[in-house]
Amino acid sequence: MTANDGHGPATRPARVSTRTLQDGVKKTVLPSGLRIITEAIPTTRSTALGIWVGIGSRDETPTLHGASHFLEHLLFKGTHKRTALEISSQIEAVGGETNAFTTKEYTCYYARVLDADLPLAVDVLVDAVADSILDPADVETERGVILEEIAMHEDEPGDEVHDIFAEAIYGDHPLGRLISGTPDSISPMTRDQINRFYRRHYTAPEIVVAAAGNLDHAAVVRLVRKALAGTPLDTGPVEPAQPRAGDKRVRVRKARNLVLHRDTEQAHIVLGGPGVGRHDERRFALGVLNNVLGGGMSSRLFQEIREKRGLAYSVYSYAGHYADSGLVGVYAGCAPAKAREVLDLIRAELDRIAAHGITAEELVRGKGMAKGSYVLGLEDTGSRMSRLAKSELLHGDLMGVDEMLARVDGVTVGEVGAVATDLLAQPLSLAVVGPFDEDELPGW
Amino acid sequence: MTANDGHGPATRPARVSTRTLQDGVKKTVLPSGLRIITEAIPTTRSTALGIWVGIGSRDETPTLHGASHFLEHLLFKGTHKRTALEISSQIEAVGGETNAFTTKEYTCYYARVLDADLPLAVDVLVDAVADSILDPADVETERGVILEEIAMHEDEPGDEVHDIFAEAIYGDHPLGRLISGTPDSISPMTRDQINRFYRRHYTAPEIVVAAAGNLDHAAVVRLVRKALAGTPLDTGPVEPAQPRAGDKRVRVRKARNLVLHRDTEQAHIVLGGPGVGRHDERRFALGVLNNVLGGGMSSRLFQEIREKRGLAYSVYSYAGHYADSGLVGVYAGCAPAKAREVLDLIRAELDRIAAHGITAEELVRGKGMAKGSYVLGLEDTGSRMSRLAKSELLHGDLMGVDEMLARVDGVTVGEVGAVATDLLAQPLSLAVVGPFDEDELPGW
Repeated sequence: MTANDGHGPATRPARVSTRTLQDGVKKTVLPSGLRIITEAIPTTRSTALGIWVGIGSRDETPTLHGASHFLEHLLFKGTHKRTALEISSQIEAVGGETNAFTTKEYTCYYARVLDADLPLAVDVLVDAVADSILDPADVETERGVILEEIAMHEDEPGDEVHDIFAEAIYGDHPLGRLISGTPDSISPMTRDQINRFYRRHYTAPEIVVAAAGNLDHAAVVRLVRKALAGTPLDTGPVEPAQPRAGDKRVRVRKARNLVLHRDTEQAHIVLGGPGVGRHDERRFALGVLNNVLGGGMSSRLFQEIREKRGLAYSVYSYAGHYADSGLVGVYAGCAPAKAREVLDLIRAELDRIAAHGITAEELVRGKGMAKGSYVLGLEDTGSRMSRLAKSELLHGDLMGVDEMLARVDGVTVGEVGAVATDLLAQPLSLAVVGPFDEDELPGW
Repeated sequence: MTANDGHGPATRPARVSTRTLQDGVKKTVLPSGLRIITEAIPTTRSTALGIWVGIGSRDETPTLHGASHFLEHLLFKGTHKRTALEISSQIEAVGGETNAFTTKEYTCYYARVLDADLPLAVDVLVDAVADSILDPADVETERGVILEEIAMHEDEPGDEVHDIFAEAIYGDHPLGRLISGTPDSISPMTRDQINRFYRRHYTAPEIVVAAAGNLDHAAVVRLVRKALAGTPLDTGPVEPAQPRAGDKRVRVRKARNLVLHRDTEQAHIVLGGPGVGRHDERRFALGVLNNVLGGGMSSRLFQEIREKRGLAYSVYSYAGHYADSGLVGVYAGCAPAKAREVLDLIRAELDRIAAHGITAEELVRGKGMAKGSYVLGLEDTGSRMSRLAKSELLHGDLMGVDEMLARVDGVTVGEVGAVATDLLAQPLSLAVVGPFDEDELPGW
């Protein structure tokens, strides 16, 4: 075996190469370019397995809007070896669970099983992702399921407002569109269009198989190779894909207000603007800023809007990151008659933090929250597995736990103040779902 | 120290008694009747801490409807030692998280922290639960928060329909009412009413402190005793409370249909009826039945309604247990125009399983799901902590993992068929949230 991280030119691309990334963490690159990363955690009884594909809704043309998510559903509908019922029942019979999710930049298929059942889970999940049939009758049935999923989402205004906000920021760029697609894009999409998307994008170099739990790396590699043998992903030799590059077309919109009228009990509000991309050094300072601003019960927004005034039950801030872009926003759900007051309070708090930054005491608390949630999150095999895959797929590198904590610790009051000024001292966009009409907004 | 499980007559009630319940699990009863149960899990870095009170919304009179939940909010608003901000910021500064929830039968206040921060968490959480001020101004502010929480819930029809279903089953018994109360009950509730509820019900014998993680039992007991000293919970000697007894007044209603008109995109439906209580031996068979009927992707309802026909995204069955009663229901969210078809399919599946039971293959799968989810759930310190507290508070006994698995393994096809007939071959109640009027339902 040769040392090859899969991102430089491989000296012997036709061979399997394995190396140790960190204590307990090993990575193997198959000749096909498919990567396998595992973390051995001998103290657990379970294993989390994920097949991650570096393809999501931002890879879709307008005609294919929703294809990644539609495909994600269809991969559980049957392969040359298994029916849909066999896929789910084989995992569930041993007490495991399996599911999948699609994001704007990647798609993940995962299972959590007892350690002895990992061979079964690998066999079932690799089969589903590599060798699905996409039977035309199943495509029609699943189209109905997707349309119901879209309708269900429309009955969750506290979630839906975040989609409206993304549209306000990104306009008609794929990052501004719904991951699920819309009834208008899903209804006419054909089986052959989805199948072409599948075969064009679900290639070995785009795939990372990650596992964390009571496992042996070499055994996992053998299981994955055996499950891949003879499938359309049994290809090569090719280099693994690089992490997604920036997209020159990403242009955030000028600040604007979008309102979706719904007869809801609460007004659901997001106020915010562009943030920073995943590789931006300011992301650590932004993480601390977010914690101080609206990241917990001790945060400024929670204190001002909920604790002192009782105007909302749910109020928080958040930061999202993509390869080349990001967004920051504040959510609040409140009585429609109080929406303007709440919005004024949020704006005042954003102005204050953009102008004056945070205190030394807040810095300590913001860092403590970032470090604590990171460390506490590492006790779950699913989170550990996700950390491996996202690092490889999105960063091309696995940052150690100690380095991650050191990066957070290195953040200064000045850096937080600077990123607050950069992001919040600009005209912000507003998204609202509630019992309002569009023309009520300018008065705000 | 004497062996005293806290449920027989104590020989020396004024002394602290400690015993080992299981490998790694110890229980101490303080002279006040307050119980402390811990599980040492040396392989983790975190500790989950919970203060559980055996009081919930079913203990409320109509006038006090929502008092348990209102009180739960108020306990984070300040004590003689800490402001609301100090309560949350002290935990969050070390990266921990804290929160609480209220159910119909108990209330839980919890924190999750790194092991070194357990002393802090005990001090903060015990202080909040034992010695809150309930400042009148805070009561007014928090009233607004609760009213917003109720409004938020009304914007989540997929959750709200379960409340309508409980009302259909239990009518105006406290088990049929909203845990949160309603605007009509919350608006006039006074600080003194809530304070009397607090001091009457939050007594040492009703409280279980549970912790799981990298901890030492004797150290936790010392920390809890120190935190309790001088508070209103520093009382005794008294025996711990017994698990909640049955309530003679619980009478389930005759099957009926309740519809809540909302302009939603989906029809949200629950069909079901009375189930079995928490101590009923049939609960293990019912667990298997529930898994087979609607507990996963391989379940009958998922296969029939989603996989084969694409009529719903979300469809599942569930079983809820109280001290003396329970309920079973099937949820589906679907297009309003398809609601009748979906309902007919659910009824057909319930009739079939009530008449013919399940197959041997389904039995194996249903047991596998029950055992797997139980074992996989035990890897999380929060779940482990909850297991300790619920066992003590609700059962008065901690069933071992092996015994629990053996009980599931012992379930037979005949037992599952019998419980299916008992519960499902009777007129069932229907709850609907969607764009319907009450008089549209009889046609269904």
